[in-house]
Amino acid sequence: MSQVTGLTVGVLGGTGPQGKGLALRWITAGLAVVIGSRKAERAQATAEELRALVGGTVSGLDNAGCAAAADVVLVAVPWEGHRELLESLRDELAGKIVIDCVNPLGFDKQGPYALHVPEGSAAQQAEKLLPDSRVTAAFHHVSAVHLVDPAIAEVATDVLVLGDDREATDLVRALADVIPGVRGIYGGRLRNAGQIEALTANLIAINRRYKAHAGIRITDV
Amino acid sequence: MSQVTGLTVGVLGGTGPQGKGLALRWITAGLAVVIGSRKAERAQATAEELRALVGGTVSGLDNAGCAAAADVVLVAVPWEGHRELLESLRDELAGKIVIDCVNPLGFDKQGPYALHVPEGSAAQQAEKLLPDSRVTAAFHHVSAVHLVDPAIAEVATDVLVLGDDREATDLVRALADVIPGVRGIYGGRLRNAGQIEALTANLIAINRRYKAHAGIRITDV
Repeated sequence: MSQVTGLTVGVLGGTGPQGKGLALRWITAGLAVVIGSRKAERAQATAEELRALVGGTVSGLDNAGCAAAADVVLVAVPWEGHRELLESLRDELAGKIVIDCVNPLGFDKQGPYALHVPEGSAAQQAEKLLPDSRVTAAFHHVSAVHLVDPAIAEVATDVLVLGDDREATDLVRALADVIPGVRGIYGGRLRNAGQIEALTANLIAINRRYKAHAGIRITDV
Repeated sequence: MSQVTGLTVGVLGGTGPQGKGLALRWITAGLAVVIGSRKAERAQATAEELRALVGGTVSGLDNAGCAAAADVVLVAVPWEGHRELLESLRDELAGKIVIDCVNPLGFDKQGPYALHVPEGSAAQQAEKLLPDSRVTAAFHHVSAVHLVDPAIAEVATDVLVLGDDREATDLVRALADVIPGVRGIYGGRLRNAGQIEALTANLIAINRRYKAHAGIRITDV
């Protein structure tokens, strides 16, 4: 915990299920969280909702305000808005650790599938758009349904943390470790993020087949 | 077990570590195994080696003989020889369940990475080359080091089984379940095989960082 004590974590797209769920866990762990959204009022409403659930230190701002106010920033927006948002926040995110958890997926009658991303992955696209930030990829597979439910004390899953900056991936691993049940594990360089994002399609297929909220654990580690 | 009792499993590339390791486990489970290799003598040598280790029913043939003799066929050849081998075995593999476990990976100074495969994945390439076979993808992540060591009684990992033919994926799951410690889990349609193959690059990165033989478990299933 020492590594992340006193940090303010920003959550871009913090009104969506994944962002809100992670925000809830980080607030519970004693971190200060700033919810970001396109509209500040929506972010404030989610911040109030979270404060009512678990107390703690949480506020809501528009995405640019959130990026500027936070020490570390999670990108949890829908893939459709990913490029445009990050292009607009290059200055606010300069020098900061950015965590991309976005999964570029499509859905058709046969279920989920991975979209082609010219840069290789959402995380690599973020890296290109944010040359002055320290981009990592993590938190792709944590069930939003489990995260957002305060009655579930432990979220039993590992979080793979990818990136080329050891200090940054270590800090993001620590941000995973503060969530009870979760283990942050280094998962490789950023160029290997595409398959981690795409793996979400397989987990959704597993959820449908087994009526589950599947996560992954790494064995022998 | 009932589903796979009496089956003969062929292992193309059965002299390599992954193929040999899975062959050892299937022989131990009481299945008949035919090792395939480019040269029948090499296949026979591996078959004798396995028989000396664990007894059971195992023989060695060239790859074409192996494909013709088996009911179910695992493709465990290096990616470099994948296309050429499967093109040559279209007739022998017609009507059969084919299990592709090949991981198209490259390595450079920065470690492992996923190769671009025009068809999307090795498994989808197999499906294109073998229009009369029932192609599945599985056994990508099982540590060859663990499999091949008879002193390791249980191989604690899940095997994701992908494919569009329910009967075929169910049978392949049963082939995973006969290995102590292993669980066969449906992992999605064949079009989602690329990320499962590529995930091997992340597991290799994890192995290097943590000095482990990492595998995966699916939680909540």
